[in-house]
Amino acid sequence: MNETWVAGAETRFPLSHLPYGVFSRESEPPRVGVAVGDSVLDLGALAGQGLLEPVADFSAPALNSFMAAGPDAWRATRARLVELLTTEEERTGVAEALVEADAVRLHLPFAVADYVDFYSSRAHAENLGRLFRPGSDPLTPNWLHLPIGYHGRAGTVVVSGTPVVRPSGQIRPPDAERPVFRPSARLDIELELGFVVGVGSELGSPVDADAAPQHLFGAVLVNDWSARDIQSWEYQPLGPFLGKSFATSIAAWVTPLEALEPFRVPAVRQDPEPLPHLRAAEPTVFDLDLEVGLAAAGMREFEAVSRTSARNLYWTVEQQVAHLTSNGTNLRTGDLLASGTISGPEPGARGSFIELSWNGAEPVKLGDGRRRTFLEDGDEVVLRGRTAGAGGFALGDVRGAILPARGDG
Amino acid sequence: MNETWVAGAETRFPLSHLPYGVFSRESEPPRVGVAVGDSVLDLGALAGQGLLEPVADFSAPALNSFMAAGPDAWRATRARLVELLTTEEERTGVAEALVEADAVRLHLPFAVADYVDFYSSRAHAENLGRLFRPGSDPLTPNWLHLPIGYHGRAGTVVVSGTPVVRPSGQIRPPDAERPVFRPSARLDIELELGFVVGVGSELGSPVDADAAPQHLFGAVLVNDWSARDIQSWEYQPLGPFLGKSFATSIAAWVTPLEALEPFRVPAVRQDPEPLPHLRAAEPTVFDLDLEVGLAAAGMREFEAVSRTSARNLYWTVEQQVAHLTSNGTNLRTGDLLASGTISGPEPGARGSFIELSWNGAEPVKLGDGRRRTFLEDGDEVVLRGRTAGAGGFALGDVRGAILPARGDG
Repeated sequence: MNETWVAGAETRFPLSHLPYGVFSRESEPPRVGVAVGDSVLDLGALAGQGLLEPVADFSAPALNSFMAAGPDAWRATRARLVELLTTEEERTGVAEALVEADAVRLHLPFAVADYVDFYSSRAHAENLGRLFRPGSDPLTPNWLHLPIGYHGRAGTVVVSGTPVVRPSGQIRPPDAERPVFRPSARLDIELELGFVVGVGSELGSPVDADAAPQHLFGAVLVNDWSARDIQSWEYQPLGPFLGKSFATSIAAWVTPLEALEPFRVPAVRQDPEPLPHLRAAEPTVFDLDLEVGLAAAGMREFEAVSRTSARNLYWTVEQQVAHLTSNGTNLRTGDLLASGTISGPEPGARGSFIELSWNGAEPVKLGDGRRRTFLEDGDEVVLRGRTAGAGGFALGDVRGAILPARGDG
Repeated sequence: MNETWVAGAETRFPLSHLPYGVFSRESEPPRVGVAVGDSVLDLGALAGQGLLEPVADFSAPALNSFMAAGPDAWRATRARLVELLTTEEERTGVAEALVEADAVRLHLPFAVADYVDFYSSRAHAENLGRLFRPGSDPLTPNWLHLPIGYHGRAGTVVVSGTPVVRPSGQIRPPDAERPVFRPSARLDIELELGFVVGVGSELGSPVDADAAPQHLFGAVLVNDWSARDIQSWEYQPLGPFLGKSFATSIAAWVTPLEALEPFRVPAVRQDPEPLPHLRAAEPTVFDLDLEVGLAAAGMREFEAVSRTSARNLYWTVEQQVAHLTSNGTNLRTGDLLASGTISGPEPGARGSFIELSWNGAEPVKLGDGRRRTFLEDGDEVVLRGRTAGAGGFALGDVRGAILPARGDG
C-alpha cells in the first residue's frame, strides 16, 4: 500500500486501518469521519466537494446510513479514500476536509438496534463455572453445542470516554437474609470484541455462517461494565439485567471488516462438531492482541493488568450470526454482537477482575503497591487492541473512569 | 362524556378509549390515526386542516414523535379530539379526516427502543417454579424483593395479525445426550400487558415509582411467543434468548394511560414490604379483564381457553420503572415494558399453555373435542382485554396464526 501524505499515519491510524466514526467541532452538528494519522477526514465535506460518491448520508450523526449501504459501497468508499489520501491529484480539496483529531469531540458512532452479548470464550466460561459451581463441570451442558448469548440494553451503550457512575442496586450481603439497596462494591469490566451489523436480513430467513460477513460492517472493542453483587442476586432465573444495564462502553472508531480480513486465523477445532446450521466452510477468528490497562487515581499511565487475544474465542462471530438467526430472527442495521469476556487459559490473560482476582481472593497488585479486587472510585480503565505481528494497526481504544455513586461522593 | 356522531362508537372504540395507532390506505404512506367507532381518524389530515395543534409529526410512520411530546401534549390532544368528535362545529372537516377502519392496514404503532420483559405475576412465577423445581420453594429467593426482568429482542416486536412461523432451534430431546436442530414442538404463548415509554429520562437519574406515570404514554396487550423446548436447553446461565426472540406480537392500538386511569385499583399488599426505592405512595394495578382465545384450523370462532385479570400482577408498572432505572439506566421514548405472563391462582386463569396444560400433562380440551398441550400449525390465538365493570372499553386485541416451520409445510 502506498504511503499517505497525511501527518502522523506512521504512528497512529495508518492507511491500512481507516476506521469510521462520528465527530463534531465546537458547535457544529456531529457527522461521519474517518481517522487517518493525526486527523479526521470529514466525509460529508468530501462528498460536498464531489470528491467522494455519496453512497450514504455522510452528514448524519450516525454511521447507520453508510452501514446499511452494503459491502459494495463500503469497498468502493474505502478504495476511493485510499486513492484520495495517497495521490497528489486532489490533495488541496482533501486537505480542506481534514480536521485535527485533537480538536474534535467523538460521539457514539452508530445507533444501536439490538445489543446481544455472547459468552464465547471457553476459558472465561470455565473460570466462572469454577468460581460459581465448584465441584461440577465448569461448562454448562449446552456450552459446547451453541454460542450462548442474551440481549443487553441497547439504550445504555455509550462511547469511549464517557464516565461511568458506580451503580447502586439491590444486593444481598453474604449471610444476610434480606437484600439492601446500596452502591455496588464489586464493580467490574468485561473485555470484549464486538461486531456491528451493516446490512439487515429478512424475518424468517436465517443467515448461515458463510453468508455472515456480507452483513457485518466492522468491529469495536467493548467494555461490558458489570456490577457482580447486583448481578448475582438478580440473575436467577432470567439472566443478567441491572448488573449490566447501567453502561456498556464501545470504541469511538469502528474498524471496517475489510481492514481485519488479513488477520483472520483458523479457529480452534470444535469438539463436538457443531450441528450443521452452525458450521462454516473454514471457521476463523481474528488475530488481535488485547490488553486491559488500569490507572488508579494519581497514576500517570495505564498499567497493563491483563494481556490476551481474540484468538481465545471458541465460537466465531459468523457462528454467532448463524445461531442468532437460526430461529428466523432478523438482523437490523446497528445490531451489536459482542463476544463476551475474552480470557485466555493463563492467569494473566483474564478479561475481567472477577477472574483476575479470583472472585476477590487474589488481589491484583499494581506497580505502586496498590491492590485491586474490583474497581474503586477514580480508577480509569482502557481496553486496547492491536493486530498481531509487525505492521498492522491499533483498534480504537475504550476508556472509562469510575465516578462515585450518586449521593455518595 | 357526550356522545360522538361517529358511527359504531357504541359497540367498538368508544369515545372513552381513543387509542393511537399507525395506519395506511392502499399505496399511501403509513401515518398516525386514532380509532373511533368504525373509523380511523387521520391526525395528519386534521392538523393539515388546522383543526388539531401539531404537537408532533402526525404524518410520521410511528407514534414516537407524539409519544416524546409529553403528558401536556397528550392531554391537550385527547381533549381536543373529544371536542371535535362530539360537537357539530367542525363536523364537515373532521368527517373528511375519517377513514373506514375496514379499509386500512395497521402497522407496528411505534419504533421499539429497548424491550424489557418482567415476571411480575406471582401465580405465574409459582406455577413455573412448581413445574421446574418441584419440592423446593416455587419462588426464587429474589422474587418477593424485586420485579425480575430481562431484555428481550426489540427488532422482532411485530404488530397484531403478523403470522408467526414456527421457529426451529437447538433442542435436547428428553434422555438424549446431544441436541438436535428441529422445529419447536412446544410452541407457546404468554399473555402480557405492556406499557410504552413516551418521555425518556436522563442516564444517571433514577425515576421513582410516583414519577413513573409522567413517562408512560400508554398500554398494549402483548403476546410473548415462546418455544419452550428451545428455551429450556439454552437458558442457563444467561436467560431466555432464541426461545423468545423469533416474535413478540403487540396490539396495533395503544391505549393512552389517561384512558386507563379510571380503572386503577389498589395493588395487593406486598409482604415483605419492598425496599424504599421500590415504594409508591399508593401502589395500583389496572382492573382489566383478560382472555386468551384459540381457534384451531377449521374453527369459525375463537374459544376462550383462559380468563384472567391484570389485577393478578404483584409488581406494578411504576415499580418496574423504579427498578429498571434504580442503577442509573435511562428510559427512552419507545421502551416497551411488558408484565410477564399474567396468571391467576385458578387453573382456568393461566396465561400460557405450559401452565394451562401443566407442562403437557393435562391437555386443554376444546369444544369440538380437540385437545391442545402446545400450539399446532394452523392455530390462531387472540389476546383480548377489557376494562372491568359496565361501560368501559375493549383494548386493541393481539392476533397471530401459526404457520409451519420453514421447509416443513
